[in-house]
Formats: sequence, structure tokens, C-alpha cells
Amino acid sequence: MASVQDICTSAAINLLSALAFLLAFAFLRLQPINDRVYFPKWYKKGIRASPKSSGALMKKFVNLDCRTYLKFWTWMPAALRMPEPELIDHAGLDSAVYVRIYLLGLKIFVPIAMLAFAVLVPVNWTGNTLDNVKDLTFSDIDKLSISNVAPGSIRFVTHIIMAYVVTFWTCYILYKEYQIVTNKRLQFLASENRRPDQFSVLVRNVPPDPDESVSEHVEHFFCVNHPDTYLTHQVVYNANKLASLVENKKSLHNWRTYYQTRYERNPKMRPTTKTGLWGLWGKTVDAIDYYTDEIEKIIQEESVEREKVMSDPKAIVPAAFVSFKSRWGAAVCAQTQQSSNPTIWLTEWAPEPRDVYWDNLAIPYVELAVKRLLMAVAMFFLTFFFMIPIAFVQSLASIDGIVKVFPFLKALIQKEKVKSVVQGFLPGIVLKIFLLLLPSILMTMSKIEGLTSLSSLDRRSAGKYHFFLLVNVFFGSLITGAAFQQLKTFLNQSPSEIPITVGVAIPMKATFFITYIMVDGWAGIAAEILRLVPLIMFHLKNTFLVKTEQDREQAMDAGCINFPSSEPRIQLYFLLGLVYSVVTPLILPFIIVFFAFSYVVFRHQIINVYDQKYESGAAFWPAVHRRVIIGLVISQFLLLGLLSTKRIAKATPFLIALPVLTIWFHRFCKGRFESAFVKFPLQDTMVKDTLERATEPNLNLKAYLQDSYLHPVFKSFDIERLGVAVDEEENNPLVSTKRSSRRSSSKTASGGITPQIVLE
Amino acid sequence: MASVQDICTSAAINLLSALAFLLAFAFLRLQPINDRVYFPKWYKKGIRASPKSSGALMKKFVNLDCRTYLKFWTWMPAALRMPEPELIDHAGLDSAVYVRIYLLGLKIFVPIAMLAFAVLVPVNWTGNTLDNVKDLTFSDIDKLSISNVAPGSIRFVTHIIMAYVVTFWTCYILYKEYQIVTNKRLQFLASENRRPDQFSVLVRNVPPDPDESVSEHVEHFFCVNHPDTYLTHQVVYNANKLASLVENKKSLHNWRTYYQTRYERNPKMRPTTKTGLWGLWGKTVDAIDYYTDEIEKIIQEESVEREKVMSDPKAIVPAAFVSFKSRWGAAVCAQTQQSSNPTIWLTEWAPEPRDVYWDNLAIPYVELAVKRLLMAVAMFFLTFFFMIPIAFVQSLASIDGIVKVFPFLKALIQKEKVKSVVQGFLPGIVLKIFLLLLPSILMTMSKIEGLTSLSSLDRRSAGKYHFFLLVNVFFGSLITGAAFQQLKTFLNQSPSEIPITVGVAIPMKATFFITYIMVDGWAGIAAEILRLVPLIMFHLKNTFLVKTEQDREQAMDAGCINFPSSEPRIQLYFLLGLVYSVVTPLILPFIIVFFAFSYVVFRHQIINVYDQKYESGAAFWPAVHRRVIIGLVISQFLLLGLLSTKRIAKATPFLIALPVLTIWFHRFCKGRFESAFVKFPLQDTMVKDTLERATEPNLNLKAYLQDSYLHPVFKSFDIERLGVAVDEEENNPLVSTKRSSRRSSSKTASGGITPQIVLE
Repeated sequence: MASVQDICTSAAINLLSALAFLLAFAFLRLQPINDRVYFPKWYKKGIRASPKSSGALMKKFVNLDCRTYLKFWTWMPAALRMPEPELIDHAGLDSAVYVRIYLLGLKIFVPIAMLAFAVLVPVNWTGNTLDNVKDLTFSDIDKLSISNVAPGSIRFVTHIIMAYVVTFWTCYILYKEYQIVTNKRLQFLASENRRPDQFSVLVRNVPPDPDESVSEHVEHFFCVNHPDTYLTHQVVYNANKLASLVENKKSLHNWRTYYQTRYERNPKMRPTTKTGLWGLWGKTVDAIDYYTDEIEKIIQEESVEREKVMSDPKAIVPAAFVSFKSRWGAAVCAQTQQSSNPTIWLTEWAPEPRDVYWDNLAIPYVELAVKRLLMAVAMFFLTFFFMIPIAFVQSLASIDGIVKVFPFLKALIQKEKVKSVVQGFLPGIVLKIFLLLLPSILMTMSKIEGLTSLSSLDRRSAGKYHFFLLVNVFFGSLITGAAFQQLKTFLNQSPSEIPITVGVAIPMKATFFITYIMVDGWAGIAAEILRLVPLIMFHLKNTFLVKTEQDREQAMDAGCINFPSSEPRIQLYFLLGLVYSVVTPLILPFIIVFFAFSYVVFRHQIINVYDQKYESGAAFWPAVHRRVIIGLVISQFLLLGLLSTKRIAKATPFLIALPVLTIWFHRFCKGRFESAFVKFPLQDTMVKDTLERATEPNLNLKAYLQDSYLHPVFKSFDIERLGVAVDEEENNPLVSTKRSSRRSSSKTASGGITPQIVLE
Repeated sequence: MASVQDICTSAAINLLSALAFLLAFAFLRLQPINDRVYFPKWYKKGIRASPKSSGALMKKFVNLDCRTYLKFWTWMPAALRMPEPELIDHAGLDSAVYVRIYLLGLKIFVPIAMLAFAVLVPVNWTGNTLDNVKDLTFSDIDKLSISNVAPGSIRFVTHIIMAYVVTFWTCYILYKEYQIVTNKRLQFLASENRRPDQFSVLVRNVPPDPDESVSEHVEHFFCVNHPDTYLTHQVVYNANKLASLVENKKSLHNWRTYYQTRYERNPKMRPTTKTGLWGLWGKTVDAIDYYTDEIEKIIQEESVEREKVMSDPKAIVPAAFVSFKSRWGAAVCAQTQQSSNPTIWLTEWAPEPRDVYWDNLAIPYVELAVKRLLMAVAMFFLTFFFMIPIAFVQSLASIDGIVKVFPFLKALIQKEKVKSVVQGFLPGIVLKIFLLLLPSILMTMSKIEGLTSLSSLDRRSAGKYHFFLLVNVFFGSLITGAAFQQLKTFLNQSPSEIPITVGVAIPMKATFFITYIMVDGWAGIAAEILRLVPLIMFHLKNTFLVKTEQDREQAMDAGCINFPSSEPRIQLYFLLGLVYSVVTPLILPFIIVFFAFSYVVFRHQIINVYDQKYESGAAFWPAVHRRVIIGLVISQFLLLGLLSTKRIAKATPFLIALPVLTIWFHRFCKGRFESAFVKFPLQDTMVKDTLERATEPNLNLKAYLQDSYLHPVFKSFDIERLGVAVDEEENNPLVSTKRSSRRSSSKTASGGITPQIVLE
């Protein structure tokens, strides 16, 4: 087992690396050349522009003002300073609520930690059981944990009461937070401007009709069944091939630009390439001519395909976006069942046009069910067979384990410093590498499952990833570690005894998880703010591809909150905190540091960097809430398993009551709040409709909705540009006066509120 | 343990008692005097009437036609003969689908039993393990069970394959049945005539408004939010006190009639009563005068209260029945959320007027949530503390147990005949008495939970009762029985080991459950058809209370299917069948006999006896489906527990796959079918609306809906009568021509189709 000294070494290493990342960030962000990497959001909003050639050339790339370096830490208070309504206005509700998850962690764990250190730690420390035990190696950390209390001791009453306090406090904070987020969402939706998705419904599984085309069938069906509100509809084209052609063209364009840039820099030698795969073999040709020809070809192919898709009735998939005369009509259609057969004419509120995942709009019901089964099976195998390599590598990552497996390494590893490094660093890193591979696999699986919007795909992947983390990182780490220590007895146990085995393993694994929190949490978040990959990518693109200001705009990768992989990871910290709050409270300060640090970093990022791909109005909150509840219930069961080995059978009924109450609480919250996230109240739509009719009586809604749900590949470049402008115009600020003041201030190039926040 | 001989004795006793019930039934039903007890349905429908004084007086009471006695068994084929569409027309969809539950049991278990006897029984029988074991007492029945196979044997492959076959066959039949029931429901709803509930929505939790009364507030809200479809609304009065007055009056009326009858029979002595509680003490008065006075008083009190309720605005509860101009409008309002606060303006499709449970319409949301929590806690205590008496009595009910506890009884009990009776009869009876007390408690709990219709109350109570049976009858019998045999080891086990303990107990408990099936199933169903309680009650009422033909009509208690207690009991048989199909297939024939016998009996009862209080259109089927799935999953887990003690660890993954697949299947069925039971497709409502508009363009819907949802106590006797007549007129037959022919045939007093079915 790792000792206190190992932990300190690890903490030092991780603190140093985190600090290094932060210093690097503080330095790099002040260089104007990196401005587009660290403040892309302001560029995307049009508030900040590339420094024009005013002043020395040097100043364009390097910041020479020494005073700014002295204030390198000011980004932290700056990130915290923007008030939340402005943050919602600036970055969207999704982002603003996302950082509230970290705040939730602080709200839950700070008071619990204080209570645990005041009450539990003294009780555990004076337990004095481990002093007498010699058969297993315990560290000083375990003396602060529940392991130090003698089986059957009356002291366990403290732990049971603490479990109750943790449960009630967590539920209270969760309830408050759900309420706040719900109100924010309702406010946000009420203040939104007119958008096509407010009037539209996505209809899927249009049944085939021998006499009518899909378009006619849709029109007739909705004319009959929603006679007073139906306005128009837009069919969905199967443009997958066209989309890949466009994608291809873009890549060819990039290559041509790259070679042209090379040629301009070195006009003596015309660059060449090979026609084969990845330019590695085949005939050698002139690169610029070759790519120009290829682009020519693909443009022709594209226009042929475009013609084909637009004219061929088979290219129309059995799905459509149906628009209504009022928001009320859309709300009615989205919430009601159309046909007595629940597998056809499925309606749901249309996602934002930019949120639509076009490939999945046309999957028949039975195929969908089969795909879901297949993905469930795949998920099962992925989850449970991934464990084998992790278990193997982790079992290596314990000093005793390594020595047992490779006795010849003993001399090297027993050296104190090597030992500390191996002990403190390896297990976390091993796990981290595995986890980096995963989110894209899970996203692919979610796509196969047939969800129709990017936001729901993100939420779905997050659910999968959470399950994976739960099984593999949490339970996997607990069980295999324990399994390595007591392999023989474990194989003979029946599966139903696992909860106890896991419960018993919890106190022993505290040091491992502390290390994990430092590597994954502390250093990971510091790396997040440094944005090393986008930094390198931007400078590479800037060097080779950027010719115009517009190219530079495109080269800028603002990125966005990686919800499907970062939210489940936060949940892992919630789980660890809840599980260890009663068992080994020493872990709590590490978690609190993680939450606090992340909160600052992500608030900075959403203010200055991230550019969200869609706005779902915090639709993910019910899932966040549910997962914290899951963590709470798991922690309660594991405590039950742990205590059932401590010879206090009378405690069992008290501990069983906890998950029951927690699940009831979850159901209560679901009834009270969830509908705000999944349903669309008619009263609110009616209010907006009435207001709009009063303020804009002559609005031509049909023209407004025309082509709003056209597949993006059909939009020519100009239309796209126009669309962006219109979109932006629509995403009006919460307080419109503020926005215009900021605009004007940005035009005056300096001064005003916003630049202060960003630059100081 | 019970031996084969005990089982045979028990089977003989139960068969004889069942036969005695059946013979009594065959005799009693042929007596004209009992006609209203055994054929009330035909009287209620107006097809059959009391025999007029045509012929001898004797003939009016006793059937003297010997030939009819010889054909006493003909009710069985007669019950089976009515085709299902006619059955639906005659008895309603609820009843017709209810008997299909028994059919479902036959469809599932007959093929499984044949396969099990062909394959599993030989494999078990030749296992020859129990011949060598002496430490526990096994009977011959156990030789046919899985206990006879040696631990670690390759023979368990058969059991695992059998578990797969059972799962897949059960799921296949469940799917088919769900499909059939769904289609029947849709057909039934589509062919229904106009009814007030098709146009109405129940609105609850109307928020208080300082300026408007509830009625005005409702009207304004729906005028604004459903401007095109809102028609009218009816407020709900808090008439609980009035209802109790009416109830009281009825009881006083009955007493007066009773004393009047007594006086008429014995005119010499005027009957007297005492004014105190239950006529037991207090001043002695003349009974007829006393009750006449009391009725006088209560009538005045009633009219005062009626005035008060109708005029006092505080008597109007914050709920209303809102009616729309079209079924489409009602469907839209019922399926959508009205307000952004999901705890106010709750809308749901209105129940039939006769289905409304008036007391629960006005419970605020928070109170409701608290009540549900309290009821959940109460349910927990009820379920888990009921076990103590059962465990005690059942432990007595084993010969060895009795001898151990009361050694002095040894001489008596060891006599072979006494032993067989005790062994075979007692445990089942003990359980049965406990269970008879329960349904009314559970119904009260459901009422406290605040459901608004009788049908949903029934479904809710059924769910509770199912849970109770599961925990107490099934698991309780398995665990406490086993606990008595291995008490000491059991107390030291942790709660997580219970699945294994239960699994191990299964084969040992087979004989107990066989006995239970015979007592509860066979004899119970035979008692059901005899209708002993209604028979006695009818003759008592007939003697003391009946003066007019109308009184006799009222004295007739047709009863109805007791869904909340009988459906969960059927589920217990499903569970037993599924659990034992792989472990001890010998139990299957007993279950099949139960299903077949019940099917015939209940088909007879719904044709001739039961008069349903409401018609929910088989809304209970999703619950039935779900509970069979629950039984299947439990059986799979118990088999897993059982096999994990048989030293075949490799089987575990195969067995874990089963519940996963089953739960997936359940979700698939839910998606595919459930919406037909909970939602209201707009297309279907539009079709009905359009048809109606075409056929009856001048319909005054507002007048039709006026007062349709008036609290029943406000309806004077005449209106009630009228209502019944109208109702009946509305419940048109599926094939209208058939119905009229049956009517005319009934008027000719004999001949025609129906009387043949009933009388032959």
C-alpha cells in the first residue's frame, strides 16, 4: 500500500505539473500570436479582430509589456467576475449550467468535508485497531479511515449517522440546484427570439404509400389531422454521398492551398505529389495542377449528385420537418401521438437546424430496435472485456505486484525515489490512456442507435461513458486490485458476494483514488486550459493553409465543452466523494480542490474559448441529477456491504432505508422538475404566439421557415454565410441594451467592459 | 418433507371439495329461486325477468325437471361456446381480456410442461444423487427435481438450455398476446359510441386565483390556451358529506323496511328498537316510527346540505371536467402539458363518469407526494411485518416442526391419517386466511395515494398486492421454511446471500406449493363459481328487505371481477410455473389444471354473473405483461442462485444473459404496444370526429355534455334511472343486428340463442 509519503510525492509532482501548465498558459495567452487560440470566442462573436498593422511588427507576435506578465494570475478572478445572466447571454445556457456542475460539487462536498474532519477523523484515528494487526500492510492513511475501527464497535453509529447526513445534505443541494436550473431554463426559453425549431416538428417513420410521394403523404396527413395549424413541411434528402463529396472537396482544397503556400515560399521548385494512397506511391505529378484537376472533377461530380438527389424521389427519406402556423400547433403535434400504431408518424420537437444529425433521420422502427439491441450487447462486451487489460496493467502498478511478477526488478524498484514515482504515477496514467480512446467509440455507438440530434447524441454517449467508468474505473479498480491480493479465495466466491468484496476493498483503495484524482483531475484540468493540441494545430494551419483573413477564421478551432466525456468524469468524482465521505474522508480535500480548480478553468474557457455547436437549453441536467443520485445509491450499498463485514448486523435496516429514501427523492424531483426539460407547456407557447401576433401582425412565417431545415450541403457558401449572420442576429442577448453597448465598445477597439475582462 | 402420499391425499381432498362445490353449484343454479344469484347479468341487461306467476307456485322456486339435472355439466361447454367478439359485446373488453390471462397461462405452460416431462424429468430421475444422501429428508418428488442431479454434473446443460427455451417461449407468447390485446383495444375504442369522456379532460390542481372563482379561472385558462376547441366545463363539488348522508338514508330505509316486513308477518307485536349504538342500548322506542322519523330528519338535513354545496363557493374543489368541441381537442389537451409548472393545471383524459373516484379529485401536489411517501413506508412495513405471523404459523404446519415445538402432540400427529391431513391442508389454509384480509387494506392505501378513477385504483391495488404476494407468499414461504430448518446458520448470513438461500430452498418447497395450488387454485375457483356469500346475502335480503320488483333488482348483487386481488394471484401461478419449470417440472400439471379450470369458470361468470362497474378497455394489460416479465426475471435469478451452489461456475454468464434479454424484450414491447393503452392517437379521434360531423351535423354537444360529470349524489333517482337507460342505449353492440335479435328472443321468454346458452 502507498504510504503518506508516496501520496505527498505524487501530490508534489502533480502540483508542479499543474503549475507548469498554468505558467505556460499565463505566458502563451499574452502573446498576440496566440490570441486566436485563447480567445476564439470573441473573434467568433466579432468583438475582437486580428490586430491590424498598427505599431511594430514585433508587437503583432510577442507581448513586450512587462506589466502584464506580473499580473499573470488575473485571469482567475476575471473568469469569476462575469455575472451569471451575462454569462448565459454570452456563452449560452448549456455552458453556464455546465460549470454549475462543478459548483454543485463544491456545494455538496465542502460542508461534508468540514463535518467529516470534525467528527469522523477523530473517531477513526482513536479506533486503534490497525496498530494490533500485522497480517496486511496498512499505511497511516488507513488509520484515518473506517478500517481503524474495531469490528462490532459502537463507534460505527457515527458512520451510520454520517451516512444519513451525507444523503440528506446531498439531496437538499440537488433539489435546490434542480430548481435553479429549471427556472433558468424556463426563463431562457421564454426570452429566446423566433427560431425555426420553435415552429417545427420532426416527423419520422412516415409509412410508405403506394399512390403518394413522401411529401404528398406528409402534407395530406397533417392537413387532415392538424387542419387549423399545419403550415408547411420540408422533406429530408438522403444527402450522405453529397456530404462526403463536399467533405472531400474541402480536403483537396486544403492540400492545394498547402502546396501553393510551399510554392510561394520557395518559387524555385514546383512541389510534386504521388497519385496513390496518401501521396506515398504511384505516379509523381505536379501537386498544384493535380489538386486543381481533382477539385474540378469533384465539383462536377458534386453538381451531378446534387441534381440527382433533388430530382430522384428515392432520395427522399421517410422523414420530414413539419412546420406549423404557431408555436402552439408545434407543441401540440410534438406532444401527441398521431397514429394508433406507435411505430409510424413519430413526432418530436425538431432540434435546432444546426443540431440535427442528418444521417439518422430515416431508420425504420424495427431496424432501430435491432440496432439498439446490438449496441446494448456491444456495450456489454466493450464494458466487460475492456477490464482485462486494465486489470493486468494495474496489478503491475503496485510495487508488491511488480516484485512478485518480476523478481529481478526488485533491486531497482526498492529504491525509495523510484518506488514513489512508480507508486504515485503509474496507475493513474495507465487508466487515463485507456480512457482517451473511448469517447469516440461510444459516440459511434450512439450514432448507430439512431438518435436524431447532436445534443441527444452527446447525452447518450455521456450515459454510456458513465456506465463504462462506473464498471471499469470504479468497480474495476476496486475488484481487480482486491482480486490480486486475494485471488484464490475470490475465484471460489459466488457473484452475489461481490458487493461485500467491493465494500471491503473501498478503504484499501483510497490511496489509489487520491493519486487518480491528482493525475486526472488536477493535471488534466491544467492541461485543458493550456489547449496544447489546438495551439499546435492553429500554428500549423496558420503557417501552411491560411491565405486570407477568412482562412484564419476557419483555422481557428474554438472547440466546445466535450460533454460526453467530461460530464461522466465529473460524476466519477461525485461518486468517489460520496463513497469515501464516510469511509476515508481524507479523499475529500483532493476532490474539493478538483471541483474548485475546474470551476475556475471552465468558466474561463466558456467565456473566452469554447464555441458551442448547439444550444439545448441545459437539457442535460436531468441526466446529471440522475447520475449523482446513482452515485449516492452506490455509496449507500457499498457502505452496507462494508459494514456487514464489521459484525454490526443491527445496522442493516437503517442502511437499507437510505437507498429507498434516495430513490423516492429522485422520483419526486423527476415529477417536480423533469417535464420542464422534455415537455413544452402550451401556456408558454400561447403567450409567445400572442405577443408575436401583436408585435408583427404581417409576418410571413412561411417564407421565414422556407429552407430552414435544408441539409447543410445544399446551402451554397453564400447562403451559409448569410445563415450565420441571421442566426447571430437571432441569438439576441438576454438584455439587449447591454449587447449593443458591448458591440459599440468592441468597435472602439479597446475600453468598455468586455475587453477589460478578457485582457487584464 | 411431504411425501408423494401426502400430495395424493391433499389432491384427493381438494378434488373432492372442488367437486362438491361444483355439484352444489350445478344443483343450485337450476333452482329458479336462485336464478338472480347465478344469472344476474341477464337480469341487469333486461333480457331475463323474474318468472311471472305462470304455472305452479312450486315451479317458481324449485326445478322439478329431472332431465336438466342429468345435464348438470353443460355449463362448461356453454361457457366456452360464446365467440369472443360476442363476449366483448356482451360483457365488455375488460372481462373478455381478463379471461385471456388464463388462456395466456395455458399457452405458456402446456408446451413447456410437455417438453419438461419429455426431457427434464428423465434427466433428473436418472441423476441418482438423493439415493446416497441421508442427512436431509427427501421425498420421491425430489427425485424428479433438480436436487437429484449431482453438483458439477454435465447434466445441468439440459437445465440451462431449458431455461432458455422457457424464456423464449414465454416471450414469444407474451408478444403475440400483447399484439392481440392491443388490436382488440383499438378496435373496441374505434367502435364505441359517443360518450362524455371522449370529449372531456379532467383538470386537477387548478391554482388559486385571488380575483376569480375556480369556475371562471378554468374557463379563462382554457379559452386562452385552447381557443378553437374549448366548449364547456363542469366544476367538482366537495359532496363527501352529502354522499355520506345519502348512504345513511339508504341504510335507515333498509332498517325501516326490515321492521315493516317483520310487522307484516307478525301483526300482533309492533317491533321495537333502542336508540343507542347499533340498537343495543338506550331508550326503547317503536322501530317503524323511529326510523320513519329518522328518515324524515335526514331528508331535511340532506336538502340543506345540498343547497349549501351548490351555493357555497368553498364547496367547489380546485378541479374540473373540461369538455371540448371535438375528440381531437380533448386528445390534445389530455396529452399536452398546460403550464410550465408541472404541478398545476394537470390534465388527463377524463375517466368514464361511472369510473370517477370523486373523493380524490382535489389533492394538492405536495400533499399528494407526501401521501405517496407515507403509503410507500406503510406498504414497506405492511409487507415486511406481515411475515412474522405467517412464518410462525407455517413453521408449525410441518409435522417435524410441530413435534419439535410440542413434543406432547407426537402420539396424535404421528397417526398416518392425521399426519396427511395436517401436512396437506394446513399451510395453504393458513396463508389463505391471511390473504383474504389484505385487498381491502391495500385498496384503502391506494385511495390515500390519490388516484382519480376506480379503474386506476384497481390497477394500483393489484400492483401492491402483487408485491405483497411476491415478498410474503413466494419469498416468505421459501425463506422462512428454509430458515426453520437451518436457523442458526441463516442468522449469521449477510443479506446479500439471500438469493442463494432462496434458490437452494426452491426444490425443497415444491410440495408446499403444490398443496397451495390445490387449496388456493382448485378449491378456490370452485368456491368462486358457487357464489356462497352472494347466495346467502340475496336470500336474506329477499326475505327481509324486498317488497317490490325494483327492490329485488337492488338486492341482486352481481359482483364483478375482483381485479385487484385475483390478477396478482394469477401472477403467483405464473411465477411458480416459471420458477419450477426448470427445477421441479412436476408442479406444472397442477398449474395447468388451475389455468384451464379458471378459464372455464371465469368465462361462465363473466357471461352470466358479473356486472362490471366500469369499462377501461383492457387498460390493465401492460401491467399483466409486466408482471409476467417480473416473474420470468425472478425465475432466472433464482435459477442462477440455485445453480451457483451446484459447482458449475461456467454457467453463470449464460444465465446472466437471460434476464438482460428478457428486460430488453420488455422494453421493446413497451415501445411497440404500450402507447395504445396510455395515449390517444389524434388520427383516430379525427376520424371519429369527422364521421360524427357528417352523420349528425346538428348535434348539440353542449347539451349532451351538460351534467354528465355531476357528482352522483346530485342526481335524483329519476335522473339516475334515465341515465342508466341512456347508458345502455349507448353501449351499442359490436354487431348491432345481433343484439336486437337477442333482445327479441329474450322477449319471447325462451328459444333463441342466448337462453339456450344459459339454461341448457
